[in-house]
Amino acid sequence: MATVPLLTDEELSPEARAVFDDIRAVRKSDFVNNFWRALAHDPALLKATWERLKQVMGSGREGGLDPLTKELVYIAVSVANGCSYCIHSHTAAARAKGLTEAGYGELMAVIGMAMQTNGLVTAMQVPVDEAFLA
Amino acid sequence: MATVPLLTDEELSPEARAVFDDIRAVRKSDFVNNFWRALAHDPALLKATWERLKQVMGSGREGGLDPLTKELVYIAVSVANGCSYCIHSHTAAARAKGLTEAGYGELMAVIGMAMQTNGLVTAMQVPVDEAFLA
Amino acid sequence: MATVPLLTDEELSPEARAVFDDIRAVRKSDFVNNFWRALAHDPALLKATWERLKQVMGSGREGGLDPLTKELVYIAVSVANGCSYCIHSHTAAARAKGLTEAGYGELMAVIGMAMQTNGLVTAMQVPVDEAFLA
Amino acid sequence: MATVPLLTDEELSPEARAVFDDIRAVRKSDFVNNFWRALAHDPALLKATWERLKQVMGSGREGGLDPLTKELVYIAVSVANGCSYCIHSHTAAARAKGLTEAGYGELMAVIGMAMQTNGLVTAMQVPVDEAFLA
Amino acid sequence: MATVPLLTDEELSPEARAVFDDIRAVRKSDFVNNFWRALAHDPALLKATWERLKQVMGSGREGGLDPLTKELVYIAVSVANGCSYCIHSHTAAARAKGLTEAGYGELMAVIGMAMQTNGLVTAMQVPVDEAFLA
Amino acid sequence: MATVPLLTDEELSPEARAVFDDIRAVRKSDFVNNFWRALAHDPALLKATWERLKQVMGSGREGGLDPLTKELVYIAVSVANGCSYCIHSHTAAARAKGLTEAGYGELMAVIGMAMQTNGLVTAMQVPVDEAFLA
Repeated sequence: MATVPLLTDEELSPEARAVFDDIRAVRKSDFVNNFWRALAHDPALLKATWERLKQVMGSGREGGLDPLTKELVYIAVSVANGCSYCIHSHTAAARAKGLTEAGYGELMAVIGMAMQTNGLVTAMQVPVDEAFLA
Repeated sequence: MATVPLLTDEELSPEARAVFDDIRAVRKSDFVNNFWRALAHDPALLKATWERLKQVMGSGREGGLDPLTKELVYIAVSVANGCSYCIHSHTAAARAKGLTEAGYGELMAVIGMAMQTNGLVTAMQVPVDEAFLA
Repeated sequence: MATVPLLTDEELSPEARAVFDDIRAVRKSDFVNNFWRALAHDPALLKATWERLKQVMGSGREGGLDPLTKELVYIAVSVANGCSYCIHSHTAAARAKGLTEAGYGELMAVIGMAMQTNGLVTAMQVPVDEAFLA
Repeated sequence: MATVPLLTDEELSPEARAVFDDIRAVRKSDFVNNFWRALAHDPALLKATWERLKQVMGSGREGGLDPLTKELVYIAVSVANGCSYCIHSHTAAARAKGLTEAGYGELMAVIGMAMQTNGLVTAMQVPVDEAFLA
Repeated sequence: MATVPLLTDEELSPEARAVFDDIRAVRKSDFVNNFWRALAHDPALLKATWERLKQVMGSGREGGLDPLTKELVYIAVSVANGCSYCIHSHTAAARAKGLTEAGYGELMAVIGMAMQTNGLVTAMQVPVDEAFLA
Repeated sequence: MATVPLLTDEELSPEARAVFDDIRAVRKSDFVNNFWRALAHDPALLKATWERLKQVMGSGREGGLDPLTKELVYIAVSVANGCSYCIHSHTAAARAKGLTEAGYGELMAVIGMAMQTNGLVTAMQVPVDEAFLA
């Protein structure tokens, strides 16, 4: 259970409703997930978060990252931070954007490998090689 | 400074030397970075770590992730875990595998966004939507 | 479910009961939350934790932090550590000590901002300015 | 050393220079710290981060948090995330905004207490009390 | 709920079944816990993870750590990372390997102490003594 | 560099000096490491931290953990939290208390394994088995 009530569509302020309208338009779906319903208590924070998310996770720059890669990076951060909600929502998003079973398996393997070597490097306090600082 | 001495080539045991030989062959470079020199005290751990890394980060499965995407996931985990060495070494690796300036900028933006929403979701303890569990 | 049974009042040892009596007296409430019921298996740890908490979170020193500010710091640490129980209990405590809706919204915004810039700074490995070390 | 060069004033693009001008104007100081010099490679990310930071950490809403309290929350998150740069820069900022020695000592005590109980609660997997969910 | 279905024995591929057979043989128990059922979708990752776990957590080297000590280290890492599943499963394993009530209480106290001093040291950015680097 | 000056013996208040005297007596050594010199600004926090540490890490209870095992748990938590100072100081302490090279190698392997499986379990959001909750 959240530390704030999740707002239904009927409980939204006009400012929050305008953000929900944009979420629905951009995503071409009537579904608005709980993250936004929790943020809806604070229309300014809701709006700032959505505007930034839309910009960062969207189509992107020329020569930048494709939307699926962005989702994988998002999942990776969320796993290391232990954010259960974020893992569920962005794993769903990654699948919707084309993550295959083979890709999911490799994602797991890379996350596991990174966690493991992060632990080893930190435990041994390995100094950064000059070559990486050039 | 590390909690173990970093072994020079001359100080390697035969088992560790065999692993270093493979690292050099696979990477087509004489350079062996400090992580392996720290692990070299424990040839069994050195070998197990290298064999697994080679398998996980390598060419991969059909339909799986490309090598650059794997590096980005690695960086993302390492940032959330605060592993300075890992960030330096895998950022260098990502650039060597083709990460552009535009791609680096987007990587930063996605990591920042994920960190931010991880914090918001966790602070508000947002429950996972049924839709994500289907 | 906890990894230890939560003790009821009837199951307390005399040493644990004495701590519970003090919790009730200090808080002017009969309610003793699960954290203490889990710790009650180990009366020495229960007592040491409660005595320290009472001292740290209490009225405080002249010129120090007010009780509400302490709760906000507590929540911030708990969010970054992903401690669900701690977030719930200290958000409730902060509200009981006067956290307003506007204050809660700003707390969310600051936590989100700190998480985001922590990620950016760590990802880019920004060196500390001399000016901050003076 | 950073994973990106830190830009001097002379190396700034016009977009980045405009952000630096605003940082200097808002802070009434010529000093621009390394975080912004690292971000300056990506003027869009620089601008988005600065605009948001200015809004979040600034004067704030009626009934919201005062600027010093915001700095303490920022420090708390940064400590739990282990962001060395962020701890240095926001501890300096907190002192500039009036944090006393007594306040600093209490901040340490609360952070230490929160870390400790986060560990205990998580280790014992204490379930959230119904009372906190009401 | 997991982000992947947990496979029943009937749903296993031949490669996954062979790993399950080995888990049951090594543990002398028919019970195979959910972690392996989640990994079973990816027989290569399942096999690599099990083979490594068996080697690391098993009888060990001459002069190395005893199996109970390994479980305590595992729990400690899992608590700091906030991995609920891992805490539950390895606390159960530690008890099965002889962890006493007195030992559990001391484990809690040490974890709490380490978390607390980690926070204090990081908050004050204490530099490493020369004596520890010798 | 620390966010507070590290006090020399000459700069100690009488209360802080008394704690330093006890540290020297208990450890049978004149060396007082930087952690205590940073805490010495706040004699009350210094005293509370030292008294608790002495109790927790000391000889312990009948049937409890031996001093070396406590150090390994301490290191494990510190690695997962990325506390460089703590890793250095407690690795030195563990070696002084008898940690062998074989033991150190196994400690690394277990930490690496725990980090890896923490990542996998969290990424797949594996639900806790009923058997672990009994």
